[in-house]
Amino acid sequence: MNIDAKKIEPRTLKGFPDYAPAEQIVRQRMFGKIQTVFERFGFLPLSTPALEYKEILLNKYGDEEKLVYSFKDNGDRDVALRYDLTVPMARYVAQNQGSLVFPFKRYQIAPVWRAENTQKGRLREFYQCDADVVGTTSPLADAEVIACFCKALEAVGVKNYQVRLNDRRNFEVFGDSATKIIRAIDKVDKIGLDGVVAEMQKQNIDLTLIEKAKEYLGGTLVAYSEVLNNLKSLVVAQGIASERIIIDPTIARGLDYYDSTVFEVKLTDKPEFGSVVGGGRYDGLVDQFSKQSVPAVGGSIGIDRLIQALEEMGKLDSAGAIQALVLNIDEKLQNDYIKLVAELRGNSINTELYYQPAKLDKQFKYAEAKDIKYAVIMGEAEAAKGVVQLKDIKTREQQEINRADLLEVLTAKFL
Amino acid sequence: MNIDAKKIEPRTLKGFPDYAPAEQIVRQRMFGKIQTVFERFGFLPLSTPALEYKEILLNKYGDEEKLVYSFKDNGDRDVALRYDLTVPMARYVAQNQGSLVFPFKRYQIAPVWRAENTQKGRLREFYQCDADVVGTTSPLADAEVIACFCKALEAVGVKNYQVRLNDRRNFEVFGDSATKIIRAIDKVDKIGLDGVVAEMQKQNIDLTLIEKAKEYLGGTLVAYSEVLNNLKSLVVAQGIASERIIIDPTIARGLDYYDSTVFEVKLTDKPEFGSVVGGGRYDGLVDQFSKQSVPAVGGSIGIDRLIQALEEMGKLDSAGAIQALVLNIDEKLQNDYIKLVAELRGNSINTELYYQPAKLDKQFKYAEAKDIKYAVIMGEAEAAKGVVQLKDIKTREQQEINRADLLEVLTAKFL
Repeated sequence: MNIDAKKIEPRTLKGFPDYAPAEQIVRQRMFGKIQTVFERFGFLPLSTPALEYKEILLNKYGDEEKLVYSFKDNGDRDVALRYDLTVPMARYVAQNQGSLVFPFKRYQIAPVWRAENTQKGRLREFYQCDADVVGTTSPLADAEVIACFCKALEAVGVKNYQVRLNDRRNFEVFGDSATKIIRAIDKVDKIGLDGVVAEMQKQNIDLTLIEKAKEYLGGTLVAYSEVLNNLKSLVVAQGIASERIIIDPTIARGLDYYDSTVFEVKLTDKPEFGSVVGGGRYDGLVDQFSKQSVPAVGGSIGIDRLIQALEEMGKLDSAGAIQALVLNIDEKLQNDYIKLVAELRGNSINTELYYQPAKLDKQFKYAEAKDIKYAVIMGEAEAAKGVVQLKDIKTREQQEINRADLLEVLTAKFL
Repeated sequence: MNIDAKKIEPRTLKGFPDYAPAEQIVRQRMFGKIQTVFERFGFLPLSTPALEYKEILLNKYGDEEKLVYSFKDNGDRDVALRYDLTVPMARYVAQNQGSLVFPFKRYQIAPVWRAENTQKGRLREFYQCDADVVGTTSPLADAEVIACFCKALEAVGVKNYQVRLNDRRNFEVFGDSATKIIRAIDKVDKIGLDGVVAEMQKQNIDLTLIEKAKEYLGGTLVAYSEVLNNLKSLVVAQGIASERIIIDPTIARGLDYYDSTVFEVKLTDKPEFGSVVGGGRYDGLVDQFSKQSVPAVGGSIGIDRLIQALEEMGKLDSAGAIQALVLNIDEKLQNDYIKLVAELRGNSINTELYYQPAKLDKQFKYAEAKDIKYAVIMGEAEAAKGVVQLKDIKTREQQEINRADLLEVLTAKFL
């Protein structure tokens, strides 16, 4: 270690957050709950690397491509940090097409990187939670993906949400201008009907098409109503309340690769967070890497937005993860402390031992700061009597119990 | 989507592996077990970003520094992918010194990136599982870290292992040549005593020092024996069998920043895998970012090596994660199937519905390929009778049970 080096200022890159233990434990619990739901629905985890050949990511994200982090590696290869989890998954499927069994159902919960404008509060490293079904055109797969995300939201504590469904083929009436019109209509929630019209004018869209777009937003040009109603009833069959699912022809999704079903989920109690889940069917993506066509449908949870919304609703499970702190009072008792701690840990109680004898006050403060539930106090007097004091750090209630009963008492409190 | 683009060859960068669902589920289970043990010992998760300012990583890794992935980002900043989890953690502690409560105990399970030589079978993206105690010089912290890693190994199924302990201050007898001699002695396991001597000669180390090094390897110059014996007894007190812990003056560890305690853990049944856990005390690392000195001790599991070793020992928990596949036999029964699947999923059974009616054989093959335990079969006849057939995919045993009893029967099999 170069001890003569001048001090380096400890700092992080903008948009690349640290998550402190108290935050990260909450995030991990959420990931765990979502993962459990994904597995309930038969999705299994796939892990793809952070770095890909750059060419794998090109021509996938439209205008956003400039936000991909790319560089030359030590072997002069053009590489890029993954921008989402969908394109690497499509690459994986194409690469392993011969050995995979279809339908291939995978989930992935992992960070992605985008050189976003941090002044708008956007992160450059953030997590996506994706689940996708690859290799079937069955509308049941679309319905299952949607139901799965609904159940994931319910699992993390969301009571009220609304799924909005559309089929991108509804935009076929706009012919070659569909892509431009989709991008304009996609913003209707933010900028309103007048905004959409202004946007289309700015894009030099033909006046008759603008009139058509207005008609479309009025609901009279929705060609795929039957498909959408069928999809809705398949979602409802999976136990999602019918009134939560709205067919909404304004839903377009930003990404280029969706080609029929598209959906978004909003929190009805926190609509200002926008959609916290989005997805759709993209039957053409795997094709870019493969001669054989492989249809696919999937979605993604915007976990950072969701966490923020849940926090505002007071619905984050932020209970401390450490259950007991054994205080260090008397050096002579050190081996008894260690033995006690080992016994608790060995029986599924998350336990700490304060490392050195210190004033009680200091040790209680440590427990408080770390949100530890109980302090176990054993000084010379208690040891001689064969008891311990068990103190609830928050309520400050204290009870004397037999040393031999401690494990049972704590177990009853937690398990 | 640019559908005119030519096909892109689907491929991954060397050293950047995909993990297929059957592998990844096993990895996640291992991470989960290790995480549980870390939390038992009072460690909480910290998450730091993948990218850091490059200067944060400089002058930390000695010769290995050239393996750091670094580049200029879109804002022309010099950035680097994290090379380990320890330096970002030290940066975090220095950056948040004012608000942290010490001792600060954190774990992190996350990928790191190193531009290694892949011809030697080394990965460029791999996971580390770290746990560290920051802010105390108490030897109890060293002992706890070591015991924690032992318990983590036991939790993932390791029966036989050996901890080798040393104190780097033992190398003080070599004065200014200590660093060079440590690097040579560190290789004794691989190249033997003669190899170490040859290495020292190559490094132009003084002949009297080489003689001293031989004496040292003979065990007569170990100045910190008492410290090490005390540490050993503290580890034993935590419930680690005494015979598993060897004091071994040849243990040096490669990294520059350790300054007293160093340790390694080997699998006695698979010594060819080398050490699967390593760590030590590094009281000087946080100092590089901070005016105040902050002592620290910690370790790391080489998870990829460990998984490979466990696989060879047949100790990986590779049971399929999906418990039931409801077969799709009759289109008219689709809503019954969906309802059945929703009921099982709602009661903690990981369940799939085959999306479209297909030949039984094809559906069984799907179940087999995905290692699904049971098939639930309900055709027109069964539906009329109010029963289902439950088939064990592996044994091919089949039993008829009442539809109303299915949940109870499956629950009893799994929970």
